[in-house]
Amino acid sequence: MKTFRLQVDTYHKEELIDITKEIRNFVKESGVESGYLILFVPHTTAGITINENTDPDVQTDVIKGLRDVFPNREDYLHFEKNSDAHLKSSVIGVSEMVLIENNDLALGVWQGLYFCEFDGPKSRKVWIKIFTD
Amino acid sequence: MKTFRLQVDTYHKEELIDITKEIRNFVKESGVESGYLILFVPHTTAGITINENTDPDVQTDVIKGLRDVFPNREDYLHFEKNSDAHLKSSVIGVSEMVLIENNDLALGVWQGLYFCEFDGPKSRKVWIKIFTD
Amino acid sequence: MKTFRLQVDTYHKEELIDITKEIRNFVKESGVESGYLILFVPHTTAGITINENTDPDVQTDVIKGLRDVFPNREDYLHFEKNSDAHLKSSVIGVSEMVLIENNDLALGVWQGLYFCEFDGPKSRKVWIKIFTD
Repeated sequence: MKTFRLQVDTYHKEELIDITKEIRNFVKESGVESGYLILFVPHTTAGITINENTDPDVQTDVIKGLRDVFPNREDYLHFEKNSDAHLKSSVIGVSEMVLIENNDLALGVWQGLYFCEFDGPKSRKVWIKIFTD
Repeated sequence: MKTFRLQVDTYHKEELIDITKEIRNFVKESGVESGYLILFVPHTTAGITINENTDPDVQTDVIKGLRDVFPNREDYLHFEKNSDAHLKSSVIGVSEMVLIENNDLALGVWQGLYFCEFDGPKSRKVWIKIFTD
Repeated sequence: MKTFRLQVDTYHKEELIDITKEIRNFVKESGVESGYLILFVPHTTAGITINENTDPDVQTDVIKGLRDVFPNREDYLHFEKNSDAHLKSSVIGVSEMVLIENNDLALGVWQGLYFCEFDGPKSRKVWIKIFTD
C-alpha cells in the first residue's frame, strides 16, 4: 500500500499535537481490517509519541519535563544552536507502530498519537504506511 | 494471526517485570518459524524495554536513574499528579519489536523483555501480535 | 528474507557511528522495491537512533547531553559499574524501523542511522531484516 504523507503545521518552539483523528481516518479509508501501521517522522528535531488523550495538561507537563532535563546549553557545539531539539528527538524517537483491529487503530482507552515539535514553528510531515496481516 | 493479550500485575509504584518467558511461549505456541512480533502496552503510565536479563540490580538501577532524572514536580499541572509517570512512558516507549528465528525470540544473549511500571501497583496488559515472513 | 548481520567496531566509551551507507547497501542488494526494514541491536549497553547526518557536532552534543543527564553514580548497585550505559540503552532503544521506497531507504533529507555505543570500545552487531509489502 502506498505511503500517506500527513502535513502537520506547528506554531510554537515546543508542542505536542494530537494527530490521532487524522491517522484514524487513514486507517478507515484504507479498508484494512487487521494489520498494523508504521508512523515515521522524517525530521531530526521532532518526534512522535503515544500518551494520554484527555487532560491536555499532560502534554504541557511532558514538554516542560523534557525542556528542563534536556536544556539548550552554551557548550553545545552544533552551529544551529538547536542541539537540545536533536537530543529530544533521539530520546522520544521518530517512529511508532500501532496495531489495526476492526478497521481501526488498536489503542488503549487513554492513548492518543502525538506529533512532538521540539524546534518550531515549522511545517512538518508524518509518513504513514499501513500493512495488512 | 490474532492478537494475544498478556496480563501483567504490578506490585510497586515503579517496577521492571521480566516477561521474556511469557512472550517466548506465545512464539513457541504460534508455530511461526521466521518473522517478528510487535509488543504494545495500551497504557500511558507504563512502558516496555529490552535490557539485561541476568543481574537484577540493573533493573533496580534503571528505575532509580529514571526516577531521579524525571522526578514528580510541584509545578506539574496534570490533576492526577502522576506526570512523572507519563513522561517516563514517553521516554521509554510503549512498543517493542523483536525478530523471530527458529520458532524463538531472536534476542542477544544478555537481553530480556521488561514491562515497565511507572504508576503502580496496577493490573496491566501487553498486546502481542506475531507476523510471519 | 534472511537476517543480515552487520559488524560495528567501536573505539570509544561513548560514540555515535553512522551506519546509513551500510544499511542502504543491504536494501539495494535485496532488490526490494517497497517495504520496510527492522534494525535490531542485540546488546544491552548500546542502542540505535536516527538523527542529523550533516554536522558531526550534533552527534557529539547528543553524546554529551546524555552523559550529563544520565551519569554513572556511586550508588548504582550493578556490579559491572556500567548502569549508566544500560539506562541510556533503554532511553534510546535498541531497534528502529525504516520504510523502503524505490529500492532505497525512505529517510528525511537530514536523517542518518546511527549505532550508539555507550560502553565501548567493543565489537558490536546490528541485525537487519527486510520485509516486502
